[in-house]
This record gives sequence, C-alpha cells and structure tokens, in this order.
Amino acid sequence: KRQLVKMPTSFPMNSGDAVYSYSKNSQIQREVLDGAKEMMKEAIIENLDIKNMLSSSNKFYITDLGCSIGPNTFNSMQHVVQVVKDKYHDNILEFQVFFNDHFNNDFNTLFRSLPVDRSYYASGVPGSFHGRLFPSRSIHFAHSSCAIHWLSKCPKELLDEKSLAWNKGLIHYVGASNVEVMNAYVAQFEKDMEMFFNARAEEIVPGGMMVLLSPFSGYRYLNFFGSTLMDLVNEGMLDESLVNSFNVPVYFPSIEDMTKVVEKNNSFSIEKIELTYPKSKLVDEADAKTLIINLTAVLQQLFINHFGNKITEETFTRTILKSEEISAWMKINYEKACQLFVALKRK
Amino acid sequence: KRQLVKMPTSFPMNSGDAVYSYSKNSQIQREVLDGAKEMMKEAIIENLDIKNMLSSSNKFYITDLGCSIGPNTFNSMQHVVQVVKDKYHDNILEFQVFFNDHFNNDFNTLFRSLPVDRSYYASGVPGSFHGRLFPSRSIHFAHSSCAIHWLSKCPKELLDEKSLAWNKGLIHYVGASNVEVMNAYVAQFEKDMEMFFNARAEEIVPGGMMVLLSPFSGYRYLNFFGSTLMDLVNEGMLDESLVNSFNVPVYFPSIEDMTKVVEKNNSFSIEKIELTYPKSKLVDEADAKTLIINLTAVLQQLFINHFGNKITEETFTRTILKSEEISAWMKINYEKACQLFVALKRK
Repeated sequence: KRQLVKMPTSFPMNSGDAVYSYSKNSQIQREVLDGAKEMMKEAIIENLDIKNMLSSSNKFYITDLGCSIGPNTFNSMQHVVQVVKDKYHDNILEFQVFFNDHFNNDFNTLFRSLPVDRSYYASGVPGSFHGRLFPSRSIHFAHSSCAIHWLSKCPKELLDEKSLAWNKGLIHYVGASNVEVMNAYVAQFEKDMEMFFNARAEEIVPGGMMVLLSPFSGYRYLNFFGSTLMDLVNEGMLDESLVNSFNVPVYFPSIEDMTKVVEKNNSFSIEKIELTYPKSKLVDEADAKTLIINLTAVLQQLFINHFGNKITEETFTRTILKSEEISAWMKINYEKACQLFVALKRK
Repeated sequence: KRQLVKMPTSFPMNSGDAVYSYSKNSQIQREVLDGAKEMMKEAIIENLDIKNMLSSSNKFYITDLGCSIGPNTFNSMQHVVQVVKDKYHDNILEFQVFFNDHFNNDFNTLFRSLPVDRSYYASGVPGSFHGRLFPSRSIHFAHSSCAIHWLSKCPKELLDEKSLAWNKGLIHYVGASNVEVMNAYVAQFEKDMEMFFNARAEEIVPGGMMVLLSPFSGYRYLNFFGSTLMDLVNEGMLDESLVNSFNVPVYFPSIEDMTKVVEKNNSFSIEKIELTYPKSKLVDEADAKTLIINLTAVLQQLFINHFGNKITEETFTRTILKSEEISAWMKINYEKACQLFVALKRK
C-alpha cells in the first residue's frame, strides 16, 4: 500500500503558471538576485579554489536551496555556472544543479520550464533545508535566495493567548510594539538556522562555498494584508482571534543575527557579509499593485491554510484594490530596498 | 520571459493517484521486479567491487531510469540499497538515488509518496534516458525496469501508407504477419539502444553496474485494444487510416537483440543475460480485468494523443467490458509470464 509522507510544515509559492502563480509573479525576488549578481561573482572569484577542492574529479555540484519555481532559480544557477567556467576557462568541468524545495513545491512546472540551453545537468531534491538533503561532502556550492527568511513554523509562543507574545491585531513583528513578539521570532530563527547550518556543514565539501541572500525590508508591506484582515473583523466577517493567532512565519535577519548563527555553528568562515541597497523598480516607482500581486503569489497558500478560501480571496482582492492608497504611502515613506548578502566558506 | 522546453516525444504513465493512475495500477510491473529481486541480489554480490570502485569516497549514487511513479521504483531502490549495505556490512556508505523519467512524468506525486523510512537521499532527474542525464563517471549503479522496451518514437516507416511496413488493421508488431513491420520496430530499438548505451557508458564509473529488466511477453494483450479500435472502425465511428497509422512504440528485446546492442557499444561486459519465467498472479489466474486496467494506466495518454479523449474513453471502456472473453482466451492460450534479465558491468 502506498505510503504518504507526513508533510513537514511548509509554505509553497503558488504553483503552475496562471495569473497569480509564483512563476509569473516573482519580480521582488528577481530584483534581490540581480542586485547580488556582481557580489556573488566577486565572492566566487576571490574565494573558490576549485583545483584544490576537486582534486582529480571534474564534477561540480551546486544546489539552490528553496528554489521554488523558475525563472529566478534558472537565472541564478546559470550565473553561478558561468562565473565558475569563466574563472577556470576550461571545458572539462561538468555541472550538476540540485533544485531543492519542500515536497509540496511544484516540481512538475519547475522541470517543464527548465531552459533548453542550460549548461548543467538538472535534478530536483524535495525536502526541507532545515534538515539533511545530500550525502556528506557532496556539494561544492550552495545558494539560497529569498528563502532562509522563511521560518520552519510559526513560533509557538505566538499561538498562545496567555503568552506575553500574543500578537493582537497584527500578523507580523514588523509594526508590533510588543517586544516579546520580536523575541519569539528571533528565537525561532536561531533554532532554524542551527539546523540549517548543521546540515550544510555536513554536506558542503571543505573549501566549498555558500551564498545566502535575504530580503531585509521588502516585506514591510505585509501589514497592509493585516489591516485588510482587521477591516473584515470590524465588519463582523471574521473572528478577531483568528487574526491574532495568525503570524506570517518570516524573519528578516540583520548582519548581527546572521553573524551570531554562523559563529555558533563554527564550520564556516564569513568571507563577506553586508547590507546592500539595490535599485528596486517596484519601490522606486511606488508600483504597489505589482508588489501586492507579487506578495499574493507568495502568501496565498499560507492564508488559505489559516483562513480558508473565502476570507483569503476577499483579503487579497481588497488589498489589491488599495493599491493607489499604498502607492501614495510608499511615496511619502520612501525607503530604498535593502537586502542582506552573505558569502561563506566551509572551513 | 519564461521558456517552455520543447518536449521530447514521450509517453507518460497516468499521473496522480486516482482510479486509473499508474501509482494504483502497476501490478504487472511489480511482478517483473519481484521476479528479478533474487537475481539482482546475486548479480550485485558476485560482480560489484565497491571498495575498489569508490576508493576513498563513501557516496554511492544509484539511478532508476524510467522510474515513473511509485511504489515500484521505491521498492526496487530500497532493495538495491539494502543488498549493497548487507554486502559491505558497514554504516559508512551514504546513498543518493536519482529517480529519472521524462519531463512530463508526475514528479510531484513521486516526491510526495517517497517512503518516510527510506535509507537514501532522494532526487529527481527529468529527461529522456536516450540522451545524457548525469555528469561523466558519476553513477555507480543504474537500474531500469519495464522502461527500455519503450521506443523513443514510432518508427517512421510505420507512418507511411506507401511503405512496405504499413501496419494495416493492427496497432503493434505482435500478431502482424508483415515482416517489414517487425523489421521497422527492431531497427528503431537498435537506434534507441545505441543512444542509451552511449550515454550510460559516459555516466557509469568503471566497475559500476547496470541491471535492465524488460517484459518479454506481457504486452501481447495490446491487440485486444487494437481489435476494439477495429470494432469502432466497423461501426463507422472511427476512420481506419487512424488505426493503421497508430503503432504502440514498444519493442520486447530478445537475448539476441540485447546482446547485439551491448556488444556494438562495447563498454559493458555482460555478466548475466537470461529469460526468466516468474510467477504471475495476473496470468495464472487469468485476471484479465486487472491486466486491462493496468494497461489502461500505461497506454491512456498515448491513445489520447492519437485518437483524442472520446475515442480513447470508448476504446478503454469497451476493452474492459471484454474482460470475461479475454479471461477465457487466456485460459486456453496459457503462456507463462516471461521477462528478460540483463546484468552489465562497465569495463
């Protein structure tokens, strides 16, 4: 009898390639990648000693952790391959890319949209990057963009009405005046990263590298969804306790947060860590509508799991309708897009 | 803009896990595997020199070529891992299994049904095994069951009304009196296997092994679908030329066929090749209904591509209704199930 895997808690992007799919709505994530391309290139050129690392083999194994669905992941994987090829200008190296994401990621769409002209062998690896995914010492370069800020679950303190961390009327720590809410998020991030780095320390070969990219301020628009939910509460369409117990499980690590978890693990040296301020078309043009549709592709499944289809649809439709108002707010509260870049080397 | 891969010609098993899905209807293929388990175990024990092959590494890479959807592929991959572990009774070896099938295989269902208690790291590799799938010398054990008898396409001579190989009134070479039909199938098989062995010769490490299993007589029930199609022609529901130009692209290689293609490639030694006669519950009990439903899961997409949904549904429904008649025929024409087993070693 066929056995179904007990799903790890996970929050997949919208599947397929329809209007609100992630594959058609991942501009924010694309901007993060584009902003980091040159930095990633430099980090590889300065730190990767392939001849020493591979010794007699000609196989170079790369993974994109939390790849979701294309085209962003294809774009960055081809970039990594090209930089490594250019650095060693030989044609002997052969590349295999492992596209990793949760079991319920849409791998069918990912595989069917693989670029025909890719210069690597492609494979998919289902599973949570908070645990082991590969044999020991089998990966030479690991990459993760817009993924490690996803927590493995909502911190449990946030689910308890009696807790000091009960996040009344809000859906995230951004905007919360209650410091216990922030602490609960940080604690969960540290627990998750401990598992993440323990697994990667086993899997990455000595001398191998890892580049992590994380949005730092891009998701402050989350609270517009929160305020729409509270509108529904005020109209009597939704019970407030459902909003209070809902907390989007993303934490945006600072330089200090990342440094702390890397140093605790102690298997990687930090080659570069910095906040960058890439140009964002969406933020610069106060293009709230595209931004909100983009967040819809990211958040829809998460909302459906908690609120059901009807409330979720109402919330997203109403928030998209607020685009002009959000645009106006963006112009006044202009804040250059900001992201965290980390280049690590396995000791 | 997202680019869609131009699909290689391929004929996926029914996806998902509904009534006529391959995952719920793959008993024939299960019998093939079960019948070969002991032989595969012996072949590994007698021929695989892991310590020499892996030298200082502890990673053992396995692939199942044309894996389709579980549970059969999980069953055989766990078997391979267990046999290798038992032979070397150490716990140092780590296994990674690459589940390979065409781009349009249902990898989502495959991944979601992965056994929780598997003792290997799992990944999926989309693409045709008639071409390259992996870096050079990166696979230690390749396995393929009920897959290499699928041709990459219908031989083109069979599509030409003017050709001597025009297969009038039939949908396969089994039962055809026209020898040109058989020749066209053999020629296509040889072309496909040339590509198959060229790719595997690059990918499998020296000393690595490959075990191929192919049904030999199991699909002679194909022609019951053909006769249903001719019923529809006779009732004026279907144009005969559509039936004449339809030929199921499967060829069942004999010992001589396989020996010829392996020797032509010249990279593998044949450690064992034989026809086996495993017990078949379906054939022994003349269980035509299960058999026909099993073939439906395998053939439905192929029929839909050629005949469309309506004719395909009519054909399958009517053929299932003939189960009693087919059962009676099976009892009279009893033929023990028969399959081809090949164990090869990379020179």
